[in-house]
Order: sequence, then C-alpha cells, then structure tokens
Amino acid sequence: MASMKRFEQLAHDIAELIRGGTLQPGQRIPSVRMASRQYNVSPSTVFRAYYLLENLGLVHARPQSGYFVTSLTSHPLPETSAPQREPRTTPVDVSELVFSILRSMREASQVPLGSAFPSPSLFPLRRLARSMAKATRLMDVNSVVTDLPPGNLQLRRQIAVRYAISGVSVPADEILVTDGALEALNLCLQAITQPGDLVAIEAPAFYACLQVLERLQLQAVEIPVAASGGIDLAVLERALQQHDIKACWFMTNFQNPTGVSLNAERKQQLVALLHRHQIPLVEDDVYGELYFGQQAPVMAKSFDRDGLVLHCSSFSKCLAPGYRVGWVSAGRYLERLQRLKLMTTLSASVPAQAALADYLEFGGFDRHLRGLRAELEAQKHQLFAAIDRYFPADVRVTRPDGGYFLWLELARNVDSLQLFRRAAEAGISIAPGPMFSATRSFHHCLRLNFGHPWSEQLDAAMATLGGLIGQA
Amino acid sequence: MASMKRFEQLAHDIAELIRGGTLQPGQRIPSVRMASRQYNVSPSTVFRAYYLLENLGLVHARPQSGYFVTSLTSHPLPETSAPQREPRTTPVDVSELVFSILRSMREASQVPLGSAFPSPSLFPLRRLARSMAKATRLMDVNSVVTDLPPGNLQLRRQIAVRYAISGVSVPADEILVTDGALEALNLCLQAITQPGDLVAIEAPAFYACLQVLERLQLQAVEIPVAASGGIDLAVLERALQQHDIKACWFMTNFQNPTGVSLNAERKQQLVALLHRHQIPLVEDDVYGELYFGQQAPVMAKSFDRDGLVLHCSSFSKCLAPGYRVGWVSAGRYLERLQRLKLMTTLSASVPAQAALADYLEFGGFDRHLRGLRAELEAQKHQLFAAIDRYFPADVRVTRPDGGYFLWLELARNVDSLQLFRRAAEAGISIAPGPMFSATRSFHHCLRLNFGHPWSEQLDAAMATLGGLIGQA
Repeated sequence: MASMKRFEQLAHDIAELIRGGTLQPGQRIPSVRMASRQYNVSPSTVFRAYYLLENLGLVHARPQSGYFVTSLTSHPLPETSAPQREPRTTPVDVSELVFSILRSMREASQVPLGSAFPSPSLFPLRRLARSMAKATRLMDVNSVVTDLPPGNLQLRRQIAVRYAISGVSVPADEILVTDGALEALNLCLQAITQPGDLVAIEAPAFYACLQVLERLQLQAVEIPVAASGGIDLAVLERALQQHDIKACWFMTNFQNPTGVSLNAERKQQLVALLHRHQIPLVEDDVYGELYFGQQAPVMAKSFDRDGLVLHCSSFSKCLAPGYRVGWVSAGRYLERLQRLKLMTTLSASVPAQAALADYLEFGGFDRHLRGLRAELEAQKHQLFAAIDRYFPADVRVTRPDGGYFLWLELARNVDSLQLFRRAAEAGISIAPGPMFSATRSFHHCLRLNFGHPWSEQLDAAMATLGGLIGQA
Repeated sequence: MASMKRFEQLAHDIAELIRGGTLQPGQRIPSVRMASRQYNVSPSTVFRAYYLLENLGLVHARPQSGYFVTSLTSHPLPETSAPQREPRTTPVDVSELVFSILRSMREASQVPLGSAFPSPSLFPLRRLARSMAKATRLMDVNSVVTDLPPGNLQLRRQIAVRYAISGVSVPADEILVTDGALEALNLCLQAITQPGDLVAIEAPAFYACLQVLERLQLQAVEIPVAASGGIDLAVLERALQQHDIKACWFMTNFQNPTGVSLNAERKQQLVALLHRHQIPLVEDDVYGELYFGQQAPVMAKSFDRDGLVLHCSSFSKCLAPGYRVGWVSAGRYLERLQRLKLMTTLSASVPAQAALADYLEFGGFDRHLRGLRAELEAQKHQLFAAIDRYFPADVRVTRPDGGYFLWLELARNVDSLQLFRRAAEAGISIAPGPMFSATRSFHHCLRLNFGHPWSEQLDAAMATLGGLIGQA
C-alpha cells in the first residue's frame, strides 16, 4: 500500500466502503467537489480515482447526475428454485440442442458472452511454454510408462500439497490424473452407476453434465439451485427419500451456469446427508480457485470422512486451457477409476503433465492466480455495470463471488432461444437457459460470461443485447 | 552402397541371399575359410561380416559347427485358428486377469518381454522436445478454442497428406484427433453399438479390445486368426449369417498379439463382405507404419467406398509415446464421433497436437521411421535366434513382417499363466495367452515383445524362459 499513488489510495478507500456495504449499490457517491474537500485532495485526483473505480466496474457515471455504485437493486436475485419444488426423474436428451448452439458459438467473430471459456489472454501461456520446453527436454524416456495412471508423481505431489494448504488431506496416491476434469467427471459417473440409474443433478446444470448422463443412459433428478445459496438441500433430502438415487453430481463453488456456491455450513450438511444415505457425491470443483474473497472456499470433500466424495478439478479454467490436465481425488473409488482410465484413454499427455508439474513448482502459480482473480472480479463489475446501463429493470441477476458466469432471469415472456438467434445475427453469442436443463426449463434465462477483458466491443454488445431483450 | 566397407558389402550380399531364400533358415552358411576364398576377401573381413550378420540376428553360431541361418524350421506356425471353427457369442469379463497381469508387468526391474510398448529409446524424444518448445512458444492463444474437435488443422492436414501418399483419399475434414488410438477405438465402438450388441473381434485379440467390449457391455464373436494370413474370412462370413453382428473390430496389420496381417487381397474381400452386410469395420491400424518390407501395407480403408471403415491410428507406437495423440478417419460416423469426443474428453492436448504438427512438417518423420523399422527388424531376428537357441523344438512361432510382437504356441500341456508367474519370479515379464481371449483360450500361448534393443539381459532372459518352458 505504501507505493500507492494518491488517486489509487482514494479509489481503494472508496472501493472498501462499497465492499463493506457503507456505500450501497445504487447509491450516489460524493460529487467530485465534495470528495475533493472531504479527502483533502485535488479535484483531478478525485477524477482519476473515480475513473479507476469506473474501470473496475464498481461505479458508473450517469449523465448530469454523477457517479453511482453499480447497482443491482433493480436486478434482484433470480428465482431459479421456484418452478418445481418436487423432484421428478427425467430421461436426458439435450445433445442436439446443445451441439447446435455450441456450433454457432464457435464462430470466432462472435462476441463471446455465451462462451464457456475465459479469455486465453488471461493465462501465462508463455511461462507455461518455458516449463513445457524444460520438461520435455529433460523428460526421462521411461516417463512414458511411469506416467501411466495414476499419473506423473511430481504433479500428483504438487496437487496434494495444494489440497493440504486448503486443509484437506489427500495423499498423492489417491489422485488420478485425467484428460481434463470432463474426463474425470465421466469416469466418476461411469464408475458409480449402471445404465438406467438415477443421478441427482442441479437445475440449472452445466450442459456437459446433462450430456454425460445422456451418454451413459442415466436418469436425472433435478435439484433446484437457489440464487442465494446453491442447491436446495430440503428438496434433495426428499428426493433421496422418494427415489433410488445412486449418485449426486454437484458443482459446489461458482456453479456453471449460475455462479452461485454452497456455503461451508451447507456443504457440511450436504456431506452429512449423503453419508446417511451412503450415496457418493461427484464434486465438480473446476472454478474453486477463481474466488474473489480473501479466502478460498472450502470443498465438500473437506467434510468427507468415508471416501464418498469424488473431488474433480483441473487446470483448464485457472492456468492452462488446452493442456487437458485434470484430476480426481477418488476416495474409495480410486481403483475402479484407474482401471476405467486405463481402458479408455490410457493416460493424460505426458509432456503436459510434466510441464504442469514444473510450472507448479517454479512458475509462480499463486501469483498468477491472484492476478487472474482480480481481473475476473473487475470484469464481473464491468458486466454488472453494463447490465445496469442497458438491460430492463426487471432482469434478475445472480451475484457470484467467483468464477466467470452470471445467470440472468428475464421477464417470463422472453424466449431465450429466440433471443439467442437474434443475438447471433447481431454477432453476439449468449448461452440460453434450456441448454442447462434436462427438462428444457429456464426458457426465459441465460448465462453470460465475464471471463473476457472488458472492451468497447463487449460494451456495445451488451447495449445491443439489452435492446433485444427490451423488444422481446 | 558406394561408401560400404568391404565386410559390410559382404554382410549385405549374404543378407540378400537369406532374404531372397537362396540361403534357407537352418542352413549352414559357408565357413570362414570357404567364404574367404569364394569372395576373395581376408578371413578377418569374413569374421567381421558374420559378426555383423549375427548382431542383426540373421545368423547364429553353433559351437564347433559354424554359422547357421536363423532357423524357424523347428518352429512351425501356430495353429491359432484350429480350436474353434464355429463362432459363438461370449460375454466379456477379462479385466481382473488383465489388470493383475499388467500391474505385475509394470515393475521397472522386469525384463520387458511381456511389455505392450516398444522401448522409448527408439523414439526421437529430443527432436520432439524441440518441436514442442517451438510450438508452445508460438502457440496462438486462440488455439485453445480452434483446436477443439476435430482438432488442430495443421496436424489433420499432415495426417491427410500421409493418407494421400498411401493412396487413400481422406480429407483433413474427415479426421478426428483423439487422445491416442485407444480413445478413437472406444469412441468408434460407442458410436456404432448399443449395450448388448454383438461385435466380431479377433481370437486372439488385443486385451484392450476385450476391455472396451466389457466396459460397453457388448458381446464378442471371436473370429480365429490364422498365423499364415490373419482372420479367417470364411468363419467371419458364417458368423455374419448366423448372428446379428453390429460391428467388427480388427487389427489388419501386424496384429497384437500375433503380429500377422491380412494381405491386400483379403483386406479387399473383408471390406466387400462387410459392405454386403452393411456392417461397419473399426480398423485398428496402430502398427501399420512399422513394416519391414519395401512397401507400406495397404489399409482396409483403401477399399472402402461407402464410409463404413473407421480407420484408427496414432503416433504412440511409431513416433511419440506418451503424447497421447491418435486419430480416426471416421467415414460416415464423423459427426457422431466428434460429439462423443466433445462429451467425454473435450479435446486432445493442444501443445501435443501442435508439437506433432510441427514435427511432421519439419522433423524428418520418414527418416526416423526408416531407422525404426530397421531396428525393429533386427531385433526380431535376434529374438528368433534366441528362440532357436533356447526354446524347445516343438514351439510354434508367427513370422511378423512388422510391428514388435511374436506369438508363440507352446506344447499343449504348458500353462502360460503358471509360466507367467514363474517367469515373473525370475524377473521376466511375458504376456500369457488367456489375456487375449474373451473365452480365456490360448492357455498354452504367449506373446513376446521384440521392441527393445537386443542386450545380454534379453538374451539371458530368453535362456531362462526357454528353460522354464522345457520344465513345464
């Protein structure tokens, strides 16, 4: 803090007032003249501080009115948990819809508000390339065999150390390296279910989860996600009593698509509930490192006493997209998962494993993560501010404390699939609600991505999108 | 040839006489004195030439008797096609056996005669590391998205060029890059079958094929492999008439475990037969580049006129083990395979794809392949010579023209699982016959690997193994 410039110090102080709740969303912050007097700084210092806060998305200017704390008062939380209180079972058949949407999203010319990925520009790809060059140059020829499942030992040790720092005891021997978290999740579900089995998932759920269920011919029991606190544990408990559920797949932190998390207490309740029923939990935690608060969120895994939680994560979202290295801390299912891995893809790419092991040891992962979290948080504020500026007042929005997704509930008469097509014609991708549901629900919802550095193009796209929503 | 030394020229000439059949296996070659007179060279030149031929495994010395062409006259072809002429359907349940054997094989201290891999020392890992360093340094950040299935375009173009050189027209757009051939094979079978379906496979078959069937709950129809010419097409035809077979999975070149191939004519007959029944063929061709003759063997794919052949291969056996990059030329099933890939592992490792694309363009792949083929062929001769020296005369052996596996049929009273355990105690791994059969047949057979540079350790292991077989 000592090296902060005057205006940075002022911006920091006001940001603290906003974060602490002294300045409420929607509230006007002091005028430049008032702040200049109050803080005993020049008006130009105040201007620069306010400009910085605006860039961070914490405040926004309204013409002839001054600066306001980026407001969500006009945008209450979505009621994603409302429609269906009684869990029913559903066969899953969503792939056609998802693939047609994904195909159109892959147009590089589209503004990537619907993207599933953060911007690759946020990642230390050059530093990783150095680790890759070093690791492959020094690679022991025998690593081809020694890196077979469970995977590169140095990498598994580094992952175990990170678990230990998070307060979770997972020895390197219980970690299975996979081709990204997606493979880990696939293998987990395959290891613990048979075709026809019931699996409890979130509603809305990440579409890949729906596709895995479809591929493995599993039935979904949808548990509603409340915008304020994650899955509804009361509904889950009733579902466990009413149905012969064989497994749960939940994203406990910064869930895709809503961005919401279960807090520590609810995670503990979840694990206790599943322990009583002896049901395994596939914990999809790929966004866990992308938290905006001071402390990493806990994992459900940290409450697991009997190996029922299969904790899956990867480096794809926080460090090395495209390297396709993920893992699962597999609890009592390790042996079965390891065999499935050997039968399906044999092993994760050996150079990629070695490069990540080197990077984790020498590359400065935590420094990178601190920068990445700050950028994503700033981008979140920018997207909120743009929603404030351009979207109708009846739009409801989640308030994620991490990750890079927002979930929006529009007026009930808006058809997000139609909105998706109109936006695509305008060169903008969005992710419409029905992608995230086995029952094609959430027709008036959509997911927006704030994983890309804010730009005039994004701002203009949000303005266009706001107009399209207003007309719908 | 101009730069050949005298003894090299002589060795070359005698090798030609052996290859051309003038000197027959088992025949004594001229004594040093006779050859010295006949070729008008000094005795020491003859000695050096014979020493070279011995190192190549083409001849071997017998004490007080002189040099003999490495003989297989005492080792006729195995009768792998004999036991069962009528194809029956079998549920597959072989994993426990295979995994327990694989686990014991992974001991690094074991002499790797049972290994599934060639020696990593045969591969240009340092040159690949240079390609990897360059490719990751120059990697476009957007390749994370653009390399999503079907995969890196430069790599697919290079693969398409290699198809074109082989006389097969496969556009880059029909190639799907996978995490090794094993994933390609898994995806193929999943794309064209449902649980409970019948699949025609080889007997003996690569155990991974059996595991994939088991995982996908498919039933096997075993088609016997004749040591002289690959699968028995007459049996296959009857099986197609008698059973509702949904797919075939055959390894057409240098089959694992027997090393035998279908010749071009039989491949054409196979494709025509399957065309009449409209049954897709998963052509597992991972050893196709490892041929010892002057010309690459053709693929069944080259006779495919209606997209029924799914040709699978990889770089794992011929260039880059551990990189986990394979592919499938998917014919009419491309779209379905691409979707399955997106749902299960998303994409192959982006740096590995980029490194291989660079290597294929600039690394000297064909020069590497020529060297690799020569080394494997020399190692094959060494293994044959060791069988001659140390194994009982009633052992039958296949005669592969490529790859790195031999298949041995021992006396009927030999139990190869017991032999496996005894050999393991002596620090030698072998791959016992029942690993390669859904019906646990081939109890008196075993697969040996000649993919490792010949050494005194290998020679001693063969002597020990020969003793164990003699006692069994």
